[in-house]
Amino acid sequence: MKTTISILGSGTVGRTLAGKFSEKGYQVIIGTRNPDETLSRAGENSFGDWYKLQQCIEVKTFQGAVQEGTIIINALNGNHTLDVLKSCDPSRFSGKIVMDISNPLDFSKGFPPTLLAGLNNTNSLGEAIQQLLPEAKVVKTLNTMWCGLMLNPTLIPGNNHINFICGNDIDSKAKVMALLNDFGWNSNQHIDLGDITAARGTEGYLLLWTRVYGATKNGAFNIAIEKV
Amino acid sequence: MKTTISILGSGTVGRTLAGKFSEKGYQVIIGTRNPDETLSRAGENSFGDWYKLQQCIEVKTFQGAVQEGTIIINALNGNHTLDVLKSCDPSRFSGKIVMDISNPLDFSKGFPPTLLAGLNNTNSLGEAIQQLLPEAKVVKTLNTMWCGLMLNPTLIPGNNHINFICGNDIDSKAKVMALLNDFGWNSNQHIDLGDITAARGTEGYLLLWTRVYGATKNGAFNIAIEKV
Repeated sequence: MKTTISILGSGTVGRTLAGKFSEKGYQVIIGTRNPDETLSRAGENSFGDWYKLQQCIEVKTFQGAVQEGTIIINALNGNHTLDVLKSCDPSRFSGKIVMDISNPLDFSKGFPPTLLAGLNNTNSLGEAIQQLLPEAKVVKTLNTMWCGLMLNPTLIPGNNHINFICGNDIDSKAKVMALLNDFGWNSNQHIDLGDITAARGTEGYLLLWTRVYGATKNGAFNIAIEKV
Repeated sequence: MKTTISILGSGTVGRTLAGKFSEKGYQVIIGTRNPDETLSRAGENSFGDWYKLQQCIEVKTFQGAVQEGTIIINALNGNHTLDVLKSCDPSRFSGKIVMDISNPLDFSKGFPPTLLAGLNNTNSLGEAIQQLLPEAKVVKTLNTMWCGLMLNPTLIPGNNHINFICGNDIDSKAKVMALLNDFGWNSNQHIDLGDITAARGTEGYLLLWTRVYGATKNGAFNIAIEKV
């Protein structure tokens, strides 16, 4: 059976991932609040214009996408994630991998953002999702880099830059790493930080990422770890 | 006139830096609450035993060290920093560079730590120090790496790993970078993240740093930035 990847979120991140998964032959569903409304958006950088260029990507409601996905990817705004997930029947996530690539960024006071109140330091979006969906296997990953690198890591040569991964279920983390390696990641580029509480670390890093982006005006980077 | 480096804090970080500055010919003062008590500590990894091997490093009270230093380095526990600084006459910091290399880590619930309440996300230790000492020129730097790398960056070959720097005074940041370059840092290894609010980013990164350390059992690393 073909793996169906359901991506929640129709923004730049969701579209970038949807395009790459689809190119690779995966069945891809984008979940959105109101598919007709999303598809009707026209103009530069609009979902409608982007969608016209796609071949096989389906657009469904959040609920429909969750129901049909083998793997669910949270590519929603961190700000909306919990509300959207609450609007879906939690039992539909049961036993499924939920790849959370989102960050709880609060842009309400402009750039650089802070992290959302209650989802930082002693908590994280990844943990909050796992708590909301106790029967899902939440794997936090890819959230520390520009979306153009997530499924195209060889844009940076050398197989040296790093992807962090965490989650409570070891098998699910292994499956996600295998999935990513299909796109050019090497096993030695993943650092497994342990259980889902490590999302506090990878989300907290966004406070630095956004400052580096602000200072260098270039988000097309990732970090490597250099040892003594 | 010789530059006097006053280091607040007699722990591993303070000693490591004191030793390197002293080797390089700087006049070095370590500031501590009670110099006699600090010097009397004996046994493995104790200050007393370490101090016996030093030639020219002086030990004074916090107040004395601040008074005589040209540059003040905060190498205190993040937890104690503000109380110690409050105990010194703020006017003694006037016009001086305060290099803050500390992190507001809260180990009260064990490892991995969180950041101290009130000093994370929408605030930082660097900012709190600048607010407490409005006439000082606070430069946050070196806080994102193992202390053994701070003044010995060539332990990692290639001049590629990164030091972040931020603060409100451009001249002071330039002076600090020049000081660091004397120890082997190259100018292109420093990223100036802007004003002191960027300390939220470099301190927030500790949430990731400590997780990487926990997962790899190796703190002798630093990050490089790899661009597309």
